[in-house]
Amino acid sequence: MPDRNPPDKPQRRPPPRFRPHSAKAAGHARPRGPGKNREGERFGGGGRGWRGRGEDDGPAILYGWHTVLAALENPARRFHRLLATENTARRLAEAHVALPRPPDIVRPEAIAALVGPEAVHQGLYAETDPLPSPDIEDLDPHGVVLVFDQITDPHNVGAILRSAAAFAVAAVVVTARHSPAATGVLAKAASGALEYVPIVTVGNLSRALTALKERGFLTIGLDSAGDADLADIDLADPLALVLGAEGRGLRQLTRATCDRIARLDLPGKIKSLNVSNATALALYIATRRLAAPR
Amino acid sequence: MPDRNPPDKPQRRPPPRFRPHSAKAAGHARPRGPGKNREGERFGGGGRGWRGRGEDDGPAILYGWHTVLAALENPARRFHRLLATENTARRLAEAHVALPRPPDIVRPEAIAALVGPEAVHQGLYAETDPLPSPDIEDLDPHGVVLVFDQITDPHNVGAILRSAAAFAVAAVVVTARHSPAATGVLAKAASGALEYVPIVTVGNLSRALTALKERGFLTIGLDSAGDADLADIDLADPLALVLGAEGRGLRQLTRATCDRIARLDLPGKIKSLNVSNATALALYIATRRLAAPR
Repeated sequence: MPDRNPPDKPQRRPPPRFRPHSAKAAGHARPRGPGKNREGERFGGGGRGWRGRGEDDGPAILYGWHTVLAALENPARRFHRLLATENTARRLAEAHVALPRPPDIVRPEAIAALVGPEAVHQGLYAETDPLPSPDIEDLDPHGVVLVFDQITDPHNVGAILRSAAAFAVAAVVVTARHSPAATGVLAKAASGALEYVPIVTVGNLSRALTALKERGFLTIGLDSAGDADLADIDLADPLALVLGAEGRGLRQLTRATCDRIARLDLPGKIKSLNVSNATALALYIATRRLAAPR
Repeated sequence: MPDRNPPDKPQRRPPPRFRPHSAKAAGHARPRGPGKNREGERFGGGGRGWRGRGEDDGPAILYGWHTVLAALENPARRFHRLLATENTARRLAEAHVALPRPPDIVRPEAIAALVGPEAVHQGLYAETDPLPSPDIEDLDPHGVVLVFDQITDPHNVGAILRSAAAFAVAAVVVTARHSPAATGVLAKAASGALEYVPIVTVGNLSRALTALKERGFLTIGLDSAGDADLADIDLADPLALVLGAEGRGLRQLTRATCDRIARLDLPGKIKSLNVSNATALALYIATRRLAAPR
């Protein structure tokens, strides 16, 4: 039976309280920290979940075996709704997964109607509160953090979060606007990573980078026009890797705020990778370099 | 003005001839090599394009600036249709891109109606013949090839092809069945890589692996249950990296046919990456190791 509170879980502030009423109200009803306005135009977002494009105040929609199982094992998740097919409910029982409530047993089509016919839901669906978002000031100045400069594609962001969890990234910093919400397709692509990687939501990215630098982070932007190959740059712990959107790349102010801009040298005819592939490569290079004896 | 036949382009057999009639007939009308049956149940597919799930005999649909521009610069592409918005047509003219025909000038909505409202078409759309598929026997026994064991997600396959082009992969081997067609979303995610990486379509993957081994390829399957970290395995040129689908991984016969099964060791709580991220990492590790002096 899985430990409901394993000691190696990342520390998260618990959400204020469980509000079992309608999912729609779940995001709105949270108390906000002092001085945080509705638009989240400050670092941290004051304990609110990762916001984005109009989906910010709804519940987090989670589906798929890995995604929902990881959420069930996260004591900080507050569940509003849990649906399972008969087969999946049996599989949960056989695996002795501790559940916050008995799942509503439904036919696969009922879940497909909620998530769309293309989504691979594997007979498991949940609606939960979004996870709380720590402030930059809460981050331990150790390890690697990723900073997303308005990466909008939820498949890419989800795949990057999965790689972030695989490389033990300490946190991911995203902008409140122009970032997809931590729900649905993104959560599925993250394959449980939402439960392992704290997401810091900020209003202004260059101010967030400045705050990271003040906390000792070396900030390196990745761009195909970088002045040196990432593998040739002196790295230091704590390290922030800053990633731009497909196509547009890093914004000018982001670029100007980073300590260095690095490129990834590639031997072939195409000189840039999909942003999630580039991030996996950068994480591999950086974590190996930081782990190696000097 | 771009060279229509640059000397550093990968060699491809030219398609038999330009057939300007309906796109639907384009795939069917090709002559086939002797002894190849309709189902492609032999290596190579006898000069036919990459086939898949009912789309195999249609034209290749290409959209987006990088994707269509790379196709326009590939002398092996035969265009049936070329649509551009007024702005994009001006941009093509300003870049002195050689065109096989004047584009039909259309409004952006006309392209959106063909590719769907979510697709980022950037005002450029083409229908072409699929590219010819070389046989395994045509591959030079040098460098790295990728082998896909029924990876079905077109976004993933497209991103992998883009990384393959970035790492100068010599070819990609795919099964005729259970592989997405080299068109649409896949072509967009590949960002022009279809023009640079020859795709070998085979009927039976374990026979294809045996043929690669007979041509001297070391065949390494990637699987989280592999017996050693890829970074610790002796690699050799020519090398075939074999990748399984998300979730299911390598099929039993594929696994049994590979020379070795390697894993990618990851320090974090999630122990497997998205297949395109895993492939980018494996290509980085393998190409660096093969390029390093012994």
